[in-house]
Amino acid sequence: MTQADSATKPGEAETGAGDFHVFDTTLRDGAQMEGLRYSVADKLAVAELLDELGVDYIEGGWPGAIPSDTEFFARAADELNFKHARLVAFGMTRRAASTAAEDPGFKALLDSRAPVLCLVAKSDMRHVEQALKTTPEENLAMIADSVRTGREHDRQVFIDCEHFFDGYRHDPVYAALVVKTALDVGAEAVVLCDTNGGSIPSDITAAFTDLRARLAADLPPERIRLGMHAQNDTGCAVANTVAAVEAGAMHVQGTANGYGERPGNANLFTVIANLETKLGRKVLPDGGLEKLTRVSHAIAEIANMTPDEHAPYTGHAAFAHKAGIHASAIKADPALYNHIEPELVGNDMRILVTEMAGRASVELKGRELGIDLAGDKDALDRITKRVKELESKGWSFEAADASFELLVRDEVEGGLPRPFTLDTYRVIVDHDPNGATVAEATVRVDVEGERVISTAQGNGPVNALDAALRSALAARHPRLAELTLSDFKVRILAGSTGTDAVTRVLISMSDGEAEWTTVGVAPNLIEASWNALADGLAYGLNRR
Amino acid sequence: MTQADSATKPGEAETGAGDFHVFDTTLRDGAQMEGLRYSVADKLAVAELLDELGVDYIEGGWPGAIPSDTEFFARAADELNFKHARLVAFGMTRRAASTAAEDPGFKALLDSRAPVLCLVAKSDMRHVEQALKTTPEENLAMIADSVRTGREHDRQVFIDCEHFFDGYRHDPVYAALVVKTALDVGAEAVVLCDTNGGSIPSDITAAFTDLRARLAADLPPERIRLGMHAQNDTGCAVANTVAAVEAGAMHVQGTANGYGERPGNANLFTVIANLETKLGRKVLPDGGLEKLTRVSHAIAEIANMTPDEHAPYTGHAAFAHKAGIHASAIKADPALYNHIEPELVGNDMRILVTEMAGRASVELKGRELGIDLAGDKDALDRITKRVKELESKGWSFEAADASFELLVRDEVEGGLPRPFTLDTYRVIVDHDPNGATVAEATVRVDVEGERVISTAQGNGPVNALDAALRSALAARHPRLAELTLSDFKVRILAGSTGTDAVTRVLISMSDGEAEWTTVGVAPNLIEASWNALADGLAYGLNRR
Repeated sequence: MTQADSATKPGEAETGAGDFHVFDTTLRDGAQMEGLRYSVADKLAVAELLDELGVDYIEGGWPGAIPSDTEFFARAADELNFKHARLVAFGMTRRAASTAAEDPGFKALLDSRAPVLCLVAKSDMRHVEQALKTTPEENLAMIADSVRTGREHDRQVFIDCEHFFDGYRHDPVYAALVVKTALDVGAEAVVLCDTNGGSIPSDITAAFTDLRARLAADLPPERIRLGMHAQNDTGCAVANTVAAVEAGAMHVQGTANGYGERPGNANLFTVIANLETKLGRKVLPDGGLEKLTRVSHAIAEIANMTPDEHAPYTGHAAFAHKAGIHASAIKADPALYNHIEPELVGNDMRILVTEMAGRASVELKGRELGIDLAGDKDALDRITKRVKELESKGWSFEAADASFELLVRDEVEGGLPRPFTLDTYRVIVDHDPNGATVAEATVRVDVEGERVISTAQGNGPVNALDAALRSALAARHPRLAELTLSDFKVRILAGSTGTDAVTRVLISMSDGEAEWTTVGVAPNLIEASWNALADGLAYGLNRR
Repeated sequence: MTQADSATKPGEAETGAGDFHVFDTTLRDGAQMEGLRYSVADKLAVAELLDELGVDYIEGGWPGAIPSDTEFFARAADELNFKHARLVAFGMTRRAASTAAEDPGFKALLDSRAPVLCLVAKSDMRHVEQALKTTPEENLAMIADSVRTGREHDRQVFIDCEHFFDGYRHDPVYAALVVKTALDVGAEAVVLCDTNGGSIPSDITAAFTDLRARLAADLPPERIRLGMHAQNDTGCAVANTVAAVEAGAMHVQGTANGYGERPGNANLFTVIANLETKLGRKVLPDGGLEKLTRVSHAIAEIANMTPDEHAPYTGHAAFAHKAGIHASAIKADPALYNHIEPELVGNDMRILVTEMAGRASVELKGRELGIDLAGDKDALDRITKRVKELESKGWSFEAADASFELLVRDEVEGGLPRPFTLDTYRVIVDHDPNGATVAEATVRVDVEGERVISTAQGNGPVNALDAALRSALAARHPRLAELTLSDFKVRILAGSTGTDAVTRVLISMSDGEAEWTTVGVAPNLIEASWNALADGLAYGLNRR
């Protein structure tokens, strides 16, 4: 069913007592993040992933106000087939001294064909007077008119009360009146927004508790439908959201990976995992929670943001245990150290190989890769020593399992066969007077005893080197054609300054079935890339 | 006074009712973070920064167990002169069936000469039995003996109760007995550690409240001295710490920038800012809070970690406002949108220039840079259009103020004079059969009408290009010698895959007085670096 067919009829929402809304605003509020830019195609892909996870509402943007959002909703109407979620168009309540039916901004929301509207409204008296420059009464009329008009058009309508908590402290009577007005005229729920992000959990608990008590004078409990929208300026957005649920909220808003303006929005994935595993609230459909890690990483890729390794639940390091004593204890009983089973959220426990962890970690890591080091103490010592040595020079195996495996097999089995050995390479980059840049690489390698020279061009030095190397190996190793580079990361390790600092490159490759990552470290990008490329190809060709 | 002189005499601590401890464990627990490695010199530098900020305790490591930590304490005794903080040596309570005086691990702590000890103890019955493999009674004796022995040696002693909250749920009577035992024998405070990080704030509030009630049967309130040590596995570490203080904790532990294992420790800087600005608790000395942002960034540099732009309070984006409507409102009243004054924590408000923000943001940004665009609508339109166009190609001006200024001045004033125009360049990188890599760059530029050709070598292509360009300009622009590169960042923008993705380079330069950042974007690193370098030098030479 397309989202155009799924509009709730007026009256249905009110019988939804006991329902709970997971409301994602990655594509609207979360899109405000510095450096983040979604194409329309990106937005459609993100929306599909969120629906796959099982969120209830996906706020797609602000049609009419942002041209690319208008385009998104137009394409969504034809291209998105949600299994579970409902698409939401964000906007404002109608302008003062007008009607919703005549307001061009409001009409644009209806034209988007989204079955759900989420309208931001003022609930802080000071904003009504200074920002909207209107009266408290007109503000209430704007809200009521907008909700009613939306419902007349068969839309579900949410009201976002902007700056709610600051406003509630300033004038709780008026703020409560705004909420009551919206609920009275049939808003699906009223979302209390900590727009400045300045709240801590005890503020949220107190406000929700106090507000519910005020509203109870006029509304039965099942009609007090409140939501929470937290910003992370005090580092408490997730906690504020959980506190709101504990104080009776039935609707939570957040963004994928906490993306958003300033310190970001509440990380919806962390919120979901906390609600499910700590509060025992099932907020996703069956099978949803275990998709959390994959969806988190997939959205980071689309957003072109480096995944946060340290994100709770979904980060690559979330269940990565390092210290030597922990590693020994974990072998005994993982439940002693993991606060939940990582598999619940689709993540894994990892043992990190570093100088602090020592032999126990190297052994565990080897086991993870299918290599039994327990019986070979000398090899274990040699490997541990080599790892520490390389790491002191900037190598990092934590993200490069394939490089670690090559190192281990070198020490234990005399090494994997290397498809080639490097003699020389030369890379030339030319910038001509017309401004065009061309790179050319020539590599001389020994391929199974035969000297091969190969030259290739590319739009940059690493690109050209990669092409030349594959070309040199192609005749002997036709399977190389199946290997693709899936990721290429560069990090300048600030040891010395500026342009001669140590460079670390991570290259991920795939043969269509598996993906592996290798690392290369050198004083310059080209040498570091060469190291990572060479290891990656060697690993890939050995995989069968 | 060196920290060796500042040991508290036994008995003094108990009269400290009303005192509050900010306890930093960046160099011990925070050092467990994946990919983080401090040299001893790094640790000394971090310790000095933390003392400058004004924390009360700096846990320096585990002498005896970690060789580089033993070295750190040895050097600290001679080289560190804290103005305010006290140095802490971390370790374990003595081993079972021994005495603290005989325990080699304990002796190593005393040998470190740190005036304060922090000992991790078991308070969860299951860990006592399975991990320590001893009896509940012996565990209490281990704690009491260790605290007494430490105090006999004129040390302040803290007890860290590992896995406290899990243990308290399992057996609150025993856990409370552990705490009481430690307080009875003179522990400075007992720190409740959420070692697995699985707690949410309501868990913490309930546990502290319940524990205080149990302890009140035996101890007067001023002797119930409890601390909080949170891990961030539920994304609530900061909130848990604040909740603990609201429930009576007088001691908080955390790390700089939240560094630590798995999702990290509680970010001590966020905790400090919340306690001061939200709870109104003065926990740093006068002038301390405004150093927060600088200290946060300085420690990130030493740790060689990319600063988290989105960190609350201290992040570069913490007070960066983007959306068009906000920018207009902020001009009216900054307090409407900033939850605190950024200057309180040494940060600034910034207006971001992006396609979503529009003309209002560009105008504000120009004003920030001292350029008045209000009177020139055509220029404002042209600049806004050029910014959007370049950003759609991967350029980012948010972190590159100097590039933005050059763009604006190009449109408004016909541009800043450029010290050179590029004709061609060629970069050659050779890897020889011995494994050595050399890069050589030749640039042909027009310097004020004169054609100059210059060649230079470097250990990498960008390094060589930088050297060649400066060499070409040196005769005409001797002031170039004062310009140094202070930072060089590379980011591969994953548009297409792998090695031919768009590369963005940010280069920071300094002339000893000011620092400026320029951006370059191109399909390869060398071209992108050239763009950023050229703009950076042009900007620098124009600064007078």
